[in-house]
Amino acid sequence: MTTTTGSSGLDALFRPRTIAVIGASDDPRKIGGRPIRYMLEAKTTATLYPVNPTRSEIQGLQAWPSAESIPGGIDQAIIAVPASMAEKAVADACAAKASAIVMFTGGFAEAGEEGAEAQRRIVELVRKSGARLLGPNSIGAFNTADRTFSTFATAMDRGTPEAGRIGLVSQSGAVGSYLQNLLINRGMAISKFVATGNEADIDVAECIEWMAHDPETEVIALYLEGCRNGPALLRALRVARETKTPVVVFKAGKTDAGQTAAASHTGALAGSAKVFDTALRETGALPCETLFEMVEAIYACSLGRLPKDNTVCVISVSGGFGVMLTDAAVEHGLSMPPISAETLATIQQELPLAVGLNPIDTTAQTVSDRTMLARTVERILRDRSYGSVVLFMANAGRNPHDVQVLREPLKKLREDFADVQLALCVQTIPETRAELEQLGYLIFEDPTQAIKALAAASSISHSLRNPTPAASVMECAPLQLSHNPDEAQSKEILSSAGIEFAREIVAATADEAVAAAKEIGFPVVLKVLSAQIAHKSEVGGVALGLADEEAVREAFARVTGNAAKAVPDAEIRGVTVAQMVSGGTQTIIGGHIDPTFGPIVMFGLGGIYTEVLKDTVLRTAPVTHDDAIQMIRSIKTFSILDGARGQEKADLDAIARAIVQMSQFIATHADEVESAEINPFIALPKGGFGVDSLIHLSNQH
Amino acid sequence: MTTTTGSSGLDALFRPRTIAVIGASDDPRKIGGRPIRYMLEAKTTATLYPVNPTRSEIQGLQAWPSAESIPGGIDQAIIAVPASMAEKAVADACAAKASAIVMFTGGFAEAGEEGAEAQRRIVELVRKSGARLLGPNSIGAFNTADRTFSTFATAMDRGTPEAGRIGLVSQSGAVGSYLQNLLINRGMAISKFVATGNEADIDVAECIEWMAHDPETEVIALYLEGCRNGPALLRALRVARETKTPVVVFKAGKTDAGQTAAASHTGALAGSAKVFDTALRETGALPCETLFEMVEAIYACSLGRLPKDNTVCVISVSGGFGVMLTDAAVEHGLSMPPISAETLATIQQELPLAVGLNPIDTTAQTVSDRTMLARTVERILRDRSYGSVVLFMANAGRNPHDVQVLREPLKKLREDFADVQLALCVQTIPETRAELEQLGYLIFEDPTQAIKALAAASSISHSLRNPTPAASVMECAPLQLSHNPDEAQSKEILSSAGIEFAREIVAATADEAVAAAKEIGFPVVLKVLSAQIAHKSEVGGVALGLADEEAVREAFARVTGNAAKAVPDAEIRGVTVAQMVSGGTQTIIGGHIDPTFGPIVMFGLGGIYTEVLKDTVLRTAPVTHDDAIQMIRSIKTFSILDGARGQEKADLDAIARAIVQMSQFIATHADEVESAEINPFIALPKGGFGVDSLIHLSNQH
Repeated sequence: MTTTTGSSGLDALFRPRTIAVIGASDDPRKIGGRPIRYMLEAKTTATLYPVNPTRSEIQGLQAWPSAESIPGGIDQAIIAVPASMAEKAVADACAAKASAIVMFTGGFAEAGEEGAEAQRRIVELVRKSGARLLGPNSIGAFNTADRTFSTFATAMDRGTPEAGRIGLVSQSGAVGSYLQNLLINRGMAISKFVATGNEADIDVAECIEWMAHDPETEVIALYLEGCRNGPALLRALRVARETKTPVVVFKAGKTDAGQTAAASHTGALAGSAKVFDTALRETGALPCETLFEMVEAIYACSLGRLPKDNTVCVISVSGGFGVMLTDAAVEHGLSMPPISAETLATIQQELPLAVGLNPIDTTAQTVSDRTMLARTVERILRDRSYGSVVLFMANAGRNPHDVQVLREPLKKLREDFADVQLALCVQTIPETRAELEQLGYLIFEDPTQAIKALAAASSISHSLRNPTPAASVMECAPLQLSHNPDEAQSKEILSSAGIEFAREIVAATADEAVAAAKEIGFPVVLKVLSAQIAHKSEVGGVALGLADEEAVREAFARVTGNAAKAVPDAEIRGVTVAQMVSGGTQTIIGGHIDPTFGPIVMFGLGGIYTEVLKDTVLRTAPVTHDDAIQMIRSIKTFSILDGARGQEKADLDAIARAIVQMSQFIATHADEVESAEINPFIALPKGGFGVDSLIHLSNQH
Repeated sequence: MTTTTGSSGLDALFRPRTIAVIGASDDPRKIGGRPIRYMLEAKTTATLYPVNPTRSEIQGLQAWPSAESIPGGIDQAIIAVPASMAEKAVADACAAKASAIVMFTGGFAEAGEEGAEAQRRIVELVRKSGARLLGPNSIGAFNTADRTFSTFATAMDRGTPEAGRIGLVSQSGAVGSYLQNLLINRGMAISKFVATGNEADIDVAECIEWMAHDPETEVIALYLEGCRNGPALLRALRVARETKTPVVVFKAGKTDAGQTAAASHTGALAGSAKVFDTALRETGALPCETLFEMVEAIYACSLGRLPKDNTVCVISVSGGFGVMLTDAAVEHGLSMPPISAETLATIQQELPLAVGLNPIDTTAQTVSDRTMLARTVERILRDRSYGSVVLFMANAGRNPHDVQVLREPLKKLREDFADVQLALCVQTIPETRAELEQLGYLIFEDPTQAIKALAAASSISHSLRNPTPAASVMECAPLQLSHNPDEAQSKEILSSAGIEFAREIVAATADEAVAAAKEIGFPVVLKVLSAQIAHKSEVGGVALGLADEEAVREAFARVTGNAAKAVPDAEIRGVTVAQMVSGGTQTIIGGHIDPTFGPIVMFGLGGIYTEVLKDTVLRTAPVTHDDAIQMIRSIKTFSILDGARGQEKADLDAIARAIVQMSQFIATHADEVESAEINPFIALPKGGFGVDSLIHLSNQH
């Protein structure tokens, strides 16, 4: 009944109608007993077939000697047998024409080479039969609407979860379960859950794509430890953006120490944290710093409404909290446009001590009649609309009377201003919290957290509504080089790729150097030219500001001599003669191949800024001109290019053109080139050009 | 019975034995009824005297016509009458010889000039009688041990709080109450609470100092909006450090927008957020970014134990969480030294799949017997000690059986390693959480939050154990200047203050300039000299690299001419002739008078670093040489001084000496000088010297 090609092959994983549990146990606490117990307790809509050749009945259900013996075949087989019996069980599942196999059994790739070999055999078996495999070493998957709980997660001991709208995709069963509990504790409910375990077949990317199309899933929570196929992950995240499904991500392994720990845990390459973050953001997914932050961001997206922009209006019953919320809004990039003085005057007719145009401090006057708060919000939203409104109500939510009085006005407010995200910052008791959420209000306790979550939601909203068009890779002939090119060759290659360089002539002798200097015009710069010497100034291979013929002649002898002395076996082709550049701002434009996500382009200010401040920005390559402009504007030291200290502004378009060309270069030659760098690229008030460059091939080390 | 001098005058505020409530109400919901209701409900140890001339009995107690009529006098009077009757009530309290007056009544300084005038009259009245005043416009104070609740805070509607160890000092009643609830929700309990309201007499500083000596208060939570007397606040915080009392602070008004909102709320100057942060940290107090962060930091200090250092060992039942905790530890400055391979081998005898030296991943093997976790921690702590240990136990805390089994082993662990802060990262139900806390374990849900709180506690612990000795201000004759000094005079003044400058000669004519250049040695720099021209290069008033007599002569005419043209009414004294400096690193050393905290010294890298990156560090002046070295090391771009890019390291002692002298200069001349700056101060591999400087007097604008 389910197709097994593409992501539709996951239907049998998430919406099975018939499930065989191979290795079924009568003991409801054993891993072969738990899924049966959970589904019986939850009154699953699927038909369950316990498979156990030694018993006739399991947990009150008829037991079957094998999956193959079940009449009519099955959609899904759960494998809950020891590792030694796993291959046989998989063969049985395939024979029963299972479309999806959920494999709890561990002891495979995660346990060493022997296990990896067994895992490869199982995958081969599954592939042949056309089935799809979750795991091995997975705690399973579940669907709360159909109440199919193909999992042994002990998190279910608190009861199988209610149906909700959050899709949870995790590479780790433990983290997935923990996160599930955190979401439930925060009043949210899960639609689908999957922990991908060893990812021998089905990976997180496919699960994301499937959930992006699932009408029961409104937000996706994603936990990642590593990624074997970066481009597939990015494709899946882009699909989620197309279906307007927010994806909130936590990625473990941000620091070197964390990555080392991750490598010993999963064996998978954690990848560069910065590239990961960049790549996720490009697709519109939101990476979070902590699990709590993740839960709060998901919460802010969970009521079926996102802020339409990043404006926020803060209304508070206490000035101190108005200040706190304002600080937080500024720090997290929300904008606080003011209400009109006329509207404040209207508010003051009821609340004479009210002050401020945004934040608006109602003072404690509303304690006697909380409905005044709702009227204040209404007056404000009749004046102007906001992406979000935060109403700080102190401890009002602890008082059932206050909430009773506010219910109708709040309901009307929610209906009248359907396009505004309404959040209450208030201390509550669980019942009033649930009641207020039911009305469509987000409820936060901590003011800063309220703002942070609204900022996260408005950033997600922005990227769902403004998908950046992807640049297409241009056609290009391969380089076909057998050795790393030297500086002059590198420049030639990048020049052909459309990047401008300072005029430069290669000179093999002092006479040629003098002739070149005369052609270019004094003063000039001489640099030794050798494929074996990358850091020319470190070996005394550079001479600056040569004003005449004599100086050039002397410098030629000096730089080639220094270089030969420093690197005796270097093949020295001579020198490059270039115009002495003065003025402009040194930038760096680079490209490299990330092991997870492929071609990446980089931009930053050159020299000390790159080395000391690490103030660089990355994108997956290729990029569009608009992307490149955004990259330039996003470095911390952008003001230096933007005319700080009375300098002329740099020509951003010229820098952007070079970034685009570099991104095309690294993307088209991703198979041959490991990295390329223009350092410095001089940004001028009009135009810009590279001065030095280096290309490193992927087959050379 | 209480003395009213110094902070001991606060005894009657926090430990009254007899309390008169002036404006007492029989209605337990009115502000004059609430304190009586709260204290009756809580069975207060104090004797209550309701004062109300119109009634004979109030809430079952005998009512008195006036405070003065109460036989034997009173320790404390609460004033809960309308503003119009307040002065009379205060006079009555004074006549009754109240040592402390808690004034709920609002409508004073916060309500405009008329109210401010009335407030001044009240303060005069109180001062004359020798009493102390809390408020006006305060929600009051309370003591949970004595059960004296001199407050009308509605937060008590959930019941008066139990006795605990957290002292809460807040400038805002609303924020104080909200914070009180957050702390209680997190399982903590309050010892003393005070909201200082208008601070007409008693301010937060005095309350902090009193609580620092209070044996019932172990940690102080401080909420600030502004500060009228910075030095008093710092003194109080230093007293808290002396009594080893952690102080955790939230300061509202961090951003410009927040400060504007704060100004309209309190009327008080919020002050520079960066100076505030600096000054608080210097005393050992810990400023927090959010209320939640504050609550978590207090929690980490609340079990009577602080981490002895910043080392942490992470033990996790799931690799993913080990990675998360490691990332967080690195990001928050904790160190993770490894256990020995032998100890891991011992652990592996029981848990064969356990991996890692720190983090240590026990894997899910411990699910069958949770006591293995306690044994693992014990093995680790027998190997080496840590400041803190975090044990991640997933959802184990939701299962009463798991906790049952672990109680004894955890208890023993806590006793055996009394000097280690032990934290569990686990999901719990409220009962198990309370039980585990009872055993002396910190309980966290979010891994990052656990680490952040432990990092906060270890930073507090470090500063309580290592108070930095304060520098003493040197004696110094006043400057007695009537006008802002020009550059040359500024240098002369700062030279006398002990700061080295580049050799420089003032020249009034071109001939004098040439003579000076010859004396100094070519090449030289010429700068126009005029008290009216601060930014000399902007008016063309600087000439660099003058190599000979002719160049100096030409430059003299040019720079004085340019300056005269640009600033026609400037009085031009001539030029300064200085040696042309090359090499070294430009730094900036400054000092200014902060309106709240007084003399402040500043250090940073010069030029673009200061202007674009705002990479500067502040301290209250004066500083010691060690302080100055720490300042230098704490800038983000310190690596530039520390030999980045193969440069020679700068002479940090020479920079530090200049910082110390500048700090002494600004501190000794705090009454005369508004700001002073050496920019640049050139840091060399050996020595360093100022090149340019500027002093601005406080009476000049």
